[in-house]
Parts: sequence; structure tokens; C-alpha cells
Amino acid sequence: MLTFVGLGLYDERSITVEGRDALQEADRVFAEFYTSRLAGTTVEALEDHHGVDIEVRDREGVEQDPESILDAAASAGDAVFLTAGDPMISTTHVDLRLRAADRGIETRIVHGTTAEAAAASLSGLQNYRFGKATTLPFPYAHGGEGVPGSVLETIADNRERGLHTLVYLDIKVGTGPDGPDPDHEEYMTADVAAGLLADELDTAGVADAAGGVDTVGVVVARAGSPEPLVAADRLAALADRDFGEPLHLLVVPGDLHLLEHEALVELTGAPEAALPDPV
Amino acid sequence: MLTFVGLGLYDERSITVEGRDALQEADRVFAEFYTSRLAGTTVEALEDHHGVDIEVRDREGVEQDPESILDAAASAGDAVFLTAGDPMISTTHVDLRLRAADRGIETRIVHGTTAEAAAASLSGLQNYRFGKATTLPFPYAHGGEGVPGSVLETIADNRERGLHTLVYLDIKVGTGPDGPDPDHEEYMTADVAAGLLADELDTAGVADAAGGVDTVGVVVARAGSPEPLVAADRLAALADRDFGEPLHLLVVPGDLHLLEHEALVELTGAPEAALPDPV
Repeated sequence: MLTFVGLGLYDERSITVEGRDALQEADRVFAEFYTSRLAGTTVEALEDHHGVDIEVRDREGVEQDPESILDAAASAGDAVFLTAGDPMISTTHVDLRLRAADRGIETRIVHGTTAEAAAASLSGLQNYRFGKATTLPFPYAHGGEGVPGSVLETIADNRERGLHTLVYLDIKVGTGPDGPDPDHEEYMTADVAAGLLADELDTAGVADAAGGVDTVGVVVARAGSPEPLVAADRLAALADRDFGEPLHLLVVPGDLHLLEHEALVELTGAPEAALPDPV
Repeated sequence: MLTFVGLGLYDERSITVEGRDALQEADRVFAEFYTSRLAGTTVEALEDHHGVDIEVRDREGVEQDPESILDAAASAGDAVFLTAGDPMISTTHVDLRLRAADRGIETRIVHGTTAEAAAASLSGLQNYRFGKATTLPFPYAHGGEGVPGSVLETIADNRERGLHTLVYLDIKVGTGPDGPDPDHEEYMTADVAAGLLADELDTAGVADAAGGVDTVGVVVARAGSPEPLVAADRLAALADRDFGEPLHLLVVPGDLHLLEHEALVELTGAPEAALPDPV
């Protein structure tokens, strides 16, 4: 049996009780932290807290050498594969699940809390009013300047329909500007993201199409931690602020309903003048 | 302090360790099960498992009489408000949080696992390729026949962009076809939903616009349980099947990438002839 377990958002207590039980009952526990990571803990603290040994695999270890993980899950073996957030959000893990199925290994998924739900939950923006999400890569990672066209298109498409866009911010672990580098760890912060998007949206006419050049952003920093930060303002203003430690998310809102508008003002201290009128 | 805690998807072990700790440390624990519920447990089992007393409030109790909950959270009081899934997905709880802020009561959110993440995770459909979600109401609840136009529009808009649509299925607790009824509890099942949508999509030309009249659906039943069921087929075929106990979800996929196509065939046993070719 191969059980994919989501560690949730922040630290060793973000896992579900079911996930913790699966972890503690497993013969071997693997983990990857290259698709995301837990900002509020370390592998050692996770091992101590749950009383288990965790074998951390890098991207190559999972994608090029999945057989060693599958071997541990074959026949009577009981292996757990840990990931931050929900375990199947990343494509690479669907691939591992398919390989397990190919070998006749039973798989199970224990869900984890996600940045997506937290972004809506913490900001007061309604979950069902989000459109497609997108990821903003570091400029060096997409081989161009500024923001890829596909990111701007997703935001524009959503805004035309009045929908919010969750923008995941790039994470580079094990790969840097010059290629593979085991020590490289880099997290795009929301001020940088807001700056990149402000430049593009305020010049590309994307904002114009949605009713104004002063595009608004909502920053969610350290979702799932005891003291998450949520801030809403014009992107250009957000670009000049410091939101502290990662991980950060950025939401580009579409139309704001009355309750969403009130939540941004009352709960995040957004300057009312920066927000579009509620619809 | 008022702490909103998500119970997660299925039973008493779907809560996070952090959520369980908050629950056990609270002076008073409130809960509502009218926006969603845990199919794998009861209030009594939750109380036993966590060693707490839970005061369940109906919609009127939360929306018309929020002050009694806020009183328990005021000054030195430590109150927890429990909801299935993530605690702030429902608008009504944003309202409660705003009322707490008005009274100077500190609020905190402990996230829970969500049906949204589970639908992607269990089906192999990629999370970032979902567009706006929608809810399919019982025909009697929207006062018309069949499927509301807004639901069809959301699916069509998403499909035009190649995106998947998560369709939440209606839940009626405390309100039935004839109005308020404390004993009423009704959950739309995925076969019924597939039947309603098949009739509309295959006649309204919505499916035509996306490349064929045999619209495909993906059913996710009992997400978060030890044995969730995932099934993919033409909507008309899904309408004739029985997916067992609630809760159910339905996804109307957009374009299928190669890995998504493979996941539906290999992991859910979808008949390959029913699926569109991968793009």
C-alpha cells in the first residue's frame, strides 16, 4: 500500500489526525519538499513530533527513481509519501500513483489543507468566485522578461468574467538561475510579484479592460500559520511593502461583492479608496 | 477569541491536529451542519472522540442569533465554531467573523481539507485547470425546471477555455420542498445530477460548442473517506448508475491533458471510448 499524505499548510500540526495515524503506522515514510514546503517546521521537527524517520527525496529521486519508493509499498509493505498541502496537487505525484497502479500496488490519498482554500478563507473573497489559478515564475525561470503572457491572459480572462485569480508564486528548490544547485532555495515574495504584475497590468491595458489602471492585489502571507498576514491595496503600493517570511500568495480580485468589499476593508485594513466599488 | 475550525471532509479524524487541539482547549464549542456535513460520523461520535461538548446551531441560530456565540468568545472566553470542510467557504461565516471584528473579538482560522482539492486529487484532473465552480440546486429549490442557466453558462464558459468545472451538488438540511422543516435532510446524488445535466447539455448545444454531444462527467463520491469512489463516463451513462452513500460531487471536464486522460482510464476505469482524445 502506498498512502499519499498531505502535510497541510504550515507546521507539524497542519496534518490531519488521519494523516498522522497513517504516518505513524507506516513501515517507511518518504517526503518531497520541492513542489512546496512547510515554512513553520523542519524535517527534524516533523520526525521528532510524530516519532518517525522521514526519507526526503529530491525531484530526481522521485521522478527518475520511483521504483525504490514503490518497492517499499509492494506486497506487505506500507509506505507513506508526504507532500506539503494536498498530496496530489502536483502532476509528478499523479505519475507516481499511476506507476503504483501499474505494479498492482494499492494507493490511498489522505488529503491536506491547501493554499487555495486558505487564500479565499483568510481574505474573505468567496471561494466560488475564483476562476482558473496561475503561477508567476521568476523571470529567469521562464527565459524572458517580466510576466509570461499566459499569466496575464489568465488574469484578464478571469476579470472579464468578474472572477478572482489566485496567483501562486514561484518556488525554486534545488534549481537556481544557473541550473541544478542542491543548496538553492528561493521563494518569490508578494511584493516582488505585485511589482512585476503592476508594471504589466498597468501598461498592457488588461486593467483598463476591467475598469481602471490601478489594479488591486490581495496578499496572503504565511497561510495556515498562527499569525497569517492579509493585505489588500493597489499592486503598485503592495510592491513597496514587506510581508515578512514566505510562503506568500497573491490574489488579483475580479468584481467585489458587498461582503467581500467589507471583509477586505474590515479584516485586512485595505484603504477603501484603493478598492473598486462593490457590485 | 473566536476560532473557526474546519472539520475537513469525512469523519472525526479529518480535522487537523491543530484543529483538534483548539477544539479541546476551548471553553465552548459550537458547530453548524447546514452548509455541509460529515458523512462518516455523528455529533455524538465527534464529542466522544475529542472529549468535548458540541452545541449544534441551525441556520437561524447562527444568522439570527450570532450574539450568543460572540458572547462566549468575548473578553477572556475561548470559543470554537466548527464547520465541515474549511470553515470560511460559506458566506454566512464571513458575516460572523465581521460581527466578531465589530465587537473587538479576535478571530483565528484553522483550515480544513476541502471537496475542491479532493475532487482534483482523487480524479487525477489537474487542480490548476479548473475554472469557476458552480452548485447544482434541486429543481424545486430554484423554482424552475431542470438546470439554472447560470450553471450551464459556467460550464460552457469553462469548457470554451478548456477548463474543468467542479459542480457542487445541492444539500438541503432544515428546509424541504415545502419550506422550513427541521427533520428534512436531502443530498443530491451524482446520478441525479448527471441526468439533469445530460438532458440540458446534450440539447442546449453547450456540448456541441465543446466538440460533441456526449458530454463526459467525473463522479467523486465520499471524498475523504477510506474508500472514495471515482467514476468517469458519459453523463447519460452515469445517470443510470448508483454511487452509494453521499456526499457526491460531479466534475464536467474541459480538455484532457495526456496524464489526466491516463488517470481517468487507469485509476477510475473510465471507458476510453467515452473520453475525448487527450490534447
